[in-house]
Amino acid sequence: MALKMVLDCDTGVDDTMAILYAALHEDVELLGVGAVFGNVPVDTATRNTTHTLAMVGRDDVPVARGADGPLDGRPQTYALFVHGDDGQGNAGTGRPVAPPVQESAAEQIVRLVRAHPGEVEIVAVGPLTNVALALDLCPELPSLVRGVTIMGGAALAPGNVTPLAEVNIWFDPNAAATVFAAPWRVTMVGLDVTMRTTLTEAHRRQLAAGGTVGDYVARILDFYFDFCASRELGERSGFLHDTLAVAVAAGALVPNLAPTVDVQVDTGEGPGRGQTVCDLRGRYMGFPEQPGAHCVVVLETDPGFADEAVALIAAAGDAQIDVTPSRLAASHGNGR
Amino acid sequence: MALKMVLDCDTGVDDTMAILYAALHEDVELLGVGAVFGNVPVDTATRNTTHTLAMVGRDDVPVARGADGPLDGRPQTYALFVHGDDGQGNAGTGRPVAPPVQESAAEQIVRLVRAHPGEVEIVAVGPLTNVALALDLCPELPSLVRGVTIMGGAALAPGNVTPLAEVNIWFDPNAAATVFAAPWRVTMVGLDVTMRTTLTEAHRRQLAAGGTVGDYVARILDFYFDFCASRELGERSGFLHDTLAVAVAAGALVPNLAPTVDVQVDTGEGPGRGQTVCDLRGRYMGFPEQPGAHCVVVLETDPGFADEAVALIAAAGDAQIDVTPSRLAASHGNGR
Repeated sequence: MALKMVLDCDTGVDDTMAILYAALHEDVELLGVGAVFGNVPVDTATRNTTHTLAMVGRDDVPVARGADGPLDGRPQTYALFVHGDDGQGNAGTGRPVAPPVQESAAEQIVRLVRAHPGEVEIVAVGPLTNVALALDLCPELPSLVRGVTIMGGAALAPGNVTPLAEVNIWFDPNAAATVFAAPWRVTMVGLDVTMRTTLTEAHRRQLAAGGTVGDYVARILDFYFDFCASRELGERSGFLHDTLAVAVAAGALVPNLAPTVDVQVDTGEGPGRGQTVCDLRGRYMGFPEQPGAHCVVVLETDPGFADEAVALIAAAGDAQIDVTPSRLAASHGNGR
Repeated sequence: MALKMVLDCDTGVDDTMAILYAALHEDVELLGVGAVFGNVPVDTATRNTTHTLAMVGRDDVPVARGADGPLDGRPQTYALFVHGDDGQGNAGTGRPVAPPVQESAAEQIVRLVRAHPGEVEIVAVGPLTNVALALDLCPELPSLVRGVTIMGGAALAPGNVTPLAEVNIWFDPNAAATVFAAPWRVTMVGLDVTMRTTLTEAHRRQLAAGGTVGDYVARILDFYFDFCASRELGERSGFLHDTLAVAVAAGALVPNLAPTVDVQVDTGEGPGRGQTVCDLRGRYMGFPEQPGAHCVVVLETDPGFADEAVALIAAAGDAQIDVTPSRLAASHGNGR
């Protein structure tokens, strides 16, 4: 039976692939998607989420607009240099999409979880603001949900925005601290594994050779590959990041090492701000049980997973909407 | 030519091996040793340092007593459950030793460095309090020293006292922050490598089969192996820890991976207190140069180094002093 999932995204390039993966995978029953600020402003994330679902004919999945900034009201910066001004590698269509539903992303999480007690996995691949707001709306959420899986954090790997902080946690450390502290199972799919699962030019060619859905994804990856070449990998390639969280939640990607340990989030103003502090001191002892710990920290997965994810998206065929680049989008492209 | 070295130790079990290694290795010219609180109180550390040098006939090396607690004056706890009440696995001789020299460990560092400008490596394998005090006494020390090598910190490995903090840094984060920030080369030999270099029961037997020096070391390792079995490794074995810093400084152990990166010490009160925050974000790009960075973070060494260290100490022959267990010490033993 497919897993009931509510996804929460700050839809940039890799989020787009995660949404496609969730929408296309037979083991996932996608109940709704929330959008949040992060890679891009929340309105851009909302638009891109709706657009992505429409591409594969999944207009039936409700899209809710969520938080436009962190819980503490600090001014927000985005990662447009990673995902493009449009969050689609400056290669989106720029065409209008359907408006989001009236309820907020947090309200949608609460409604969908309440409708299916014990069955819904919340999969959050952006800042955890919407999930923290849902906890605020419904303090009994932890007893109603199956669990929460996030793409975010770094346990033993370096951060990607500071030496220690992964960007989704960094964007709203207070929200992350709330989510990790709540009494539910949190599965953390962080940089320890997502930085080990790379998309290559061969994957991009495979996508481009699929239908227009795959071709669209190959197009938006172009800008992202340039970013990774200059800042993270030294060659034109990229990371799947968000898709791994969806796949781990769905059971399509089974971690090779994922101890259940205590995790705190550093919300201070020191060099550790935004760090996911995972208690992995037990690693030489095979991770003995930590009483009260409820966070599953994924430390090893099969790097070959990228092949499966790419194959699924490449097989999506042609888009249900027109995804040819608009003149407007083309004028904002990176000239490749 | 042998490297002029000033060693600074909080002499517990592994420090004893590091002192022996430094005193015995032909590539090291040991100018002096300072003692500091940490594993044990400073008076115990001073006594054990003097005793260790006397064992191998190196009474010529001056031993100076140093700080009895951290710079900020907080009450100090020790690691007697790791090193025994006597810092010698409750298996020391308990016999009196010569008193330390009159100057403090910090004063001794300054004097020895000034006597050999550009030639002295400070190797600190306990809390960095004495080294920070030496900087305070002599602000130009960074331009006079060859460099500083420490056993301490953890870059990508978990901590050993909190999830993030290694104990030498944890004992005095302010001193560590001062030492890492000063404009000299700091080589950090931390848990990333020291937790990968284990001493086994076979090593212990090899030591016991040497002269009375090796037999003494085998005896004090017994208690430490029990600690590691119950708390860190799950089997009777231990870590060399401090000896690695001496060997790296001396060039006897050449790191396989040791990027020069920015390092900050978290001195806050959050979950990151005492963490060595190493900027390793460049690791997928082969660690591009970080302008201004002056900290060499050792990430990989040959785990087989333990064999060499054990062989050197096992070959030390018989002690120059009586190292048979005293009746007093035996009555405090762990009954093995």
